Amino acid sequence: MNIHKPTNILADLKVTTGALPGSKKVYTTSALDSEVRVPHREIFVHPSSGDDPLRIYDTSGIYTDDDFTIDLEKGLPRLREKWILERGDVEAYAGREIKLEDNGVVGDKHRERDFPVTHTPLRAKDGKAVTQLEYARQGIITKEMIYIAERENMGRKQAVEKAAERVADGESFGAEIPEFVTPEFVRSEVARGRAVIPLNINHPESEPMIIGRNFLVKINANIGNSAVTSSVAEEVDKMVWATRWGADTVMDLSTGRNIHTTREWIIRNSSVPIGTVPMYQALEKCDGDPTKLTWELYRDTLIEQCEQGVDYFTIHAGVRLRYIHLTAKRLTGIVSRGGSIMAKWCLNNHKESFLYEHFEDICDIMRMYDVSFSLGDGLRPGSIADANDEAQFAELETLGELTQVAWAKGCQVIIEGPGHVPMHKIKVNMDKQLRECGEAPFYTLGPLTTDIAPGYDHITSGIGAAMIGWFGVSMLCYVTPKEHLGLPNRDDVKTGVITYKIAAHAADLAKGHPAAQEHDDALSKSRFEFRWEDQFNLGLDAETALQYHDETLPKEAHKVAHFCSMCGPKFCAMKITQDVRDYAAKLNDQTQGMAQMSKSFKKLGSELYLPEKTVIEANEELGGNGLKSTDEI
Amino acid sequence: MNIHKPTNILADLKVTTGALPGSKKVYTTSALDSEVRVPHREIFVHPSSGDDPLRIYDTSGIYTDDDFTIDLEKGLPRLREKWILERGDVEAYAGREIKLEDNGVVGDKHRERDFPVTHTPLRAKDGKAVTQLEYARQGIITKEMIYIAERENMGRKQAVEKAAERVADGESFGAEIPEFVTPEFVRSEVARGRAVIPLNINHPESEPMIIGRNFLVKINANIGNSAVTSSVAEEVDKMVWATRWGADTVMDLSTGRNIHTTREWIIRNSSVPIGTVPMYQALEKCDGDPTKLTWELYRDTLIEQCEQGVDYFTIHAGVRLRYIHLTAKRLTGIVSRGGSIMAKWCLNNHKESFLYEHFEDICDIMRMYDVSFSLGDGLRPGSIADANDEAQFAELETLGELTQVAWAKGCQVIIEGPGHVPMHKIKVNMDKQLRECGEAPFYTLGPLTTDIAPGYDHITSGIGAAMIGWFGVSMLCYVTPKEHLGLPNRDDVKTGVITYKIAAHAADLAKGHPAAQEHDDALSKSRFEFRWEDQFNLGLDAETALQYHDETLPKEAHKVAHFCSMCGPKFCAMKITQDVRDYAAKLNDQTQGMAQMSKSFKKLGSELYLPEKTVIEANEELGGNGLKSTDEI
Repeated sequence: MNIHKPTNILADLKVTTGALPGSKKVYTTSALDSEVRVPHREIFVHPSSGDDPLRIYDTSGIYTDDDFTIDLEKGLPRLREKWILERGDVEAYAGREIKLEDNGVVGDKHRERDFPVTHTPLRAKDGKAVTQLEYARQGIITKEMIYIAERENMGRKQAVEKAAERVADGESFGAEIPEFVTPEFVRSEVARGRAVIPLNINHPESEPMIIGRNFLVKINANIGNSAVTSSVAEEVDKMVWATRWGADTVMDLSTGRNIHTTREWIIRNSSVPIGTVPMYQALEKCDGDPTKLTWELYRDTLIEQCEQGVDYFTIHAGVRLRYIHLTAKRLTGIVSRGGSIMAKWCLNNHKESFLYEHFEDICDIMRMYDVSFSLGDGLRPGSIADANDEAQFAELETLGELTQVAWAKGCQVIIEGPGHVPMHKIKVNMDKQLRECGEAPFYTLGPLTTDIAPGYDHITSGIGAAMIGWFGVSMLCYVTPKEHLGLPNRDDVKTGVITYKIAAHAADLAKGHPAAQEHDDALSKSRFEFRWEDQFNLGLDAETALQYHDETLPKEAHKVAHFCSMCGPKFCAMKITQDVRDYAAKLNDQTQGMAQMSKSFKKLGSELYLPEKTVIEANEELGGNGLKSTDEI
Repeated sequence: MNIHKPTNILADLKVTTGALPGSKKVYTTSALDSEVRVPHREIFVHPSSGDDPLRIYDTSGIYTDDDFTIDLEKGLPRLREKWILERGDVEAYAGREIKLEDNGVVGDKHRERDFPVTHTPLRAKDGKAVTQLEYARQGIITKEMIYIAERENMGRKQAVEKAAERVADGESFGAEIPEFVTPEFVRSEVARGRAVIPLNINHPESEPMIIGRNFLVKINANIGNSAVTSSVAEEVDKMVWATRWGADTVMDLSTGRNIHTTREWIIRNSSVPIGTVPMYQALEKCDGDPTKLTWELYRDTLIEQCEQGVDYFTIHAGVRLRYIHLTAKRLTGIVSRGGSIMAKWCLNNHKESFLYEHFEDICDIMRMYDVSFSLGDGLRPGSIADANDEAQFAELETLGELTQVAWAKGCQVIIEGPGHVPMHKIKVNMDKQLRECGEAPFYTLGPLTTDIAPGYDHITSGIGAAMIGWFGVSMLCYVTPKEHLGLPNRDDVKTGVITYKIAAHAADLAKGHPAAQEHDDALSKSRFEFRWEDQFNLGLDAETALQYHDETLPKEAHKVAHFCSMCGPKFCAMKITQDVRDYAAKLNDQTQGMAQMSKSFKKLGSELYLPEKTVIEANEELGGNGLKSTDEI
């Protein structure tokens, strides 16, 4: 792991680069299109295993490609630019001028340096539809879709070859996960709105990915500064850091100063889709006073962010005036920032939400850039007491209505969900969302399954996230240990991402994703064979695993030892298993074989304290010729 | 928090004492028996809340009672001694002599100092039954049962008074949790074997507690040294530390040297039940060679530990010779230490397990001291690939048979469960256990819902633990971040305990435990009212919450601030909610009232983009007289 520090930079701008331990970046090329070259991570295993390297899904971009030199001042290569231009349906244009207020009105002292390179924004030509949804409906399989199919398969050429061996006996609750993902399957899922490809045409640096319940469960990491903390450099670092550990998308939730500049540095250097809540910036532009918000100001902010390349917008258009009083008796009222801003606006102006009133106008803007909707749950519960209440569900129904409006406009849509929900109320959320929102992908924050553990809300919510991921959520928004207490730092981001990779993977396993268990099996096999280094490297966080191991057994020799500190050298369960295998192999060589033995056992199975005679009799009944007593079993 | 260090001690013997932040120890006395005085923890909240202190279940013993002086050299007060002797059914006797081999044959160099006080062991008088199960069957409500009822109610005198206010709408999957726990309810649950009171008559220091699915979900923390690490002082410290954070029982899984002495120091200073796996010590006595184990040696070890006061024994009597070959094709064979030892013994001797063969003899010993069985799952899966396989379930069926044998002997029984199980296979375990084992309490290790995160197995397993706790498990055995990598240190113990308190509490909530949500509500209310100190103190780990908060907003003034670092002062969702409440209150004062409004909204609910006219019409239809347009809502 190298700390990359370019020479000509923002103060302290540095990000972590280099391959993960025991791993390298590999690329496969789609059989359908040689231009589509997709990255994966391969984890090596010791030759003694007899196994191939394990190939896994990789969100880390070229930051983990040792053949590549990063230049944060230039931004990432513009992977999709050619694809976008080739389609002939976009035009470059001057774009909106960047204003002082876009960064908050900051004096030079606090002003961060602009990103050095300027790109001319693109938008759809008049009358053209440039969203992946529109392409999909027209039957067009885009390069992005081909890329995604290759990526979701993790380069497996023929999953079917392996199908006979694999175990994937999950309960999918109605998801229809295919054995092998084809570009046509990607297209069809996008066309029916059941999956989203969040890719702004002005963010060509991003590697195409998909969010939908028939694909791998994805995770999002929130970053962003606030009025009282952090800097651009820290946020760029957190973005790269989050994707290094597995974030599939990153939301920049910055408030306070330098919002525009922070976002520009992030987007230009991000290989994953970037989401925002445009309202946060709009509010900064009117000095933090929700009552001063206007549609014009919000609209201007949307365009600003569309031109920068934000891939999806959280828009709290479901917080309608008529629902606001439903929150009055809640234990914790409205806890969503976006939701509370709109509530305040509605109350102060005694008007219906302008987001709701102008929803079609918003669609018209977002479709020009293929920015996806993430319809925000501004009335989500902020405590166990408020879970699944009338306010929450009323808003969800409105989000379902808005989904239809957005779809009619050719816009892609995901739906945000709670929040704080006890375990027994989680599934109701998923079922209702599927029903109300026409199977549009669901994107939840946790949910937290109890309120009583500030400092550990990655765990209270990881429980809920795993469950709702299993039930059908397409993307899980992480919660870090700092939730409710402060802004996450670098360590918190990592802990949050890894906790949510656990939740997402546990969900994939339980849903029966065809390839999920390969990772578990590779790791467990390495564990069982005392390939310590392999066990560390195959884990979600090799560095931490190694460090924990070394706390008790630091010597290098112990990493090839056939024991560990839990049991010590003489006392090892796994070692004993080899004796069992030898024994079973010997049994197999004997006349009666395993089948006969099983039959015999089954017959005897329900009796306790069998006298030796019984065993002999039972065996004779079965025509056994070898098994004379329990002693021989 | 004080670090208590007595003057005359083992090297480095010290434990953490003192009340938890914002808390004090309170005692309530049972209305039925003034001798029964039960500890609880009360957490203060700021007077501005208008609320009483929150009273919660307390496992920390007198270590958190500021009125008490701890003397680790003497051990804890012998709370139950009088109760036990008063029953007149036990006798003191000389007991087994302590041998060198009880501590492993160690030279003076590594030998730890003996516990300074010796107590004469007790056992049942000839023909007497001294188990809580036998008392319960005879209709006797013991003082322990009275104590437990008071404890489980957390001193609530009249839960029914509060019943009208409380929300407890869980899904209990057939559990029958009463509104208020009476001593008679405790008795009846013990009598039918659905709950266990693990209390050795030789561990009178322990505070009575109960394990059963109709009570609060409990958690166990494993501690113990191994051949390559740790010391007596560290293990005593870990025991006290684990109970400080909420461990309901502690298992001492020591191997290696000084096993007997370590256990003695632990038991004499433990206010929670202590469990062990006697096989570990038995194996040390034959120099770690499973093939040298004998029934006589094992029996001698059982008696040694019964006399010391171990409250429950894990006994892997379900690992039958006939099941061993079923593990041969597993990805990870046998991973239980106890299971693998027995498998090795069976194979080497070509004999049925002596634990199985001598199971009735074992019952006869354990009933004399009221040591409870924890029937071990020696064939539990060690990987996702091996979950719910034939070997695992065959053993579970045998554990069901053994439960009946133990019950017939008057012994109390809990059943151990897995292990590594993907989410979709968890419930099957619970359902099968209930069916096979006559509702004897289930006690599971996690389960881990994926294998891919060494270093984070408290989280992979916390997910499974919360779920299976909800489904009906009575006690959850914690897993620490060091699982698979090394022995847990102090920090790992704390992380493991808090993770499992989360899982257990999330399960209580989801089951609909009548008092569980009070804790969540108190915390969320404090959060919503910006009572920062209250929020920290009401959490499971006030120190960590405070530390996280202070990383971004360290000043004292910020702890009374009505904002936090996430949103900054101008931008606070919760602050806005007050406006909503004011607004709703105003609405309530108006003629039409909320009910009318709701009716009106409901009628309009399914329409998108309502023209103003429609609202007026709908309102008129409903006979409305105030609501003229959406603007007024």
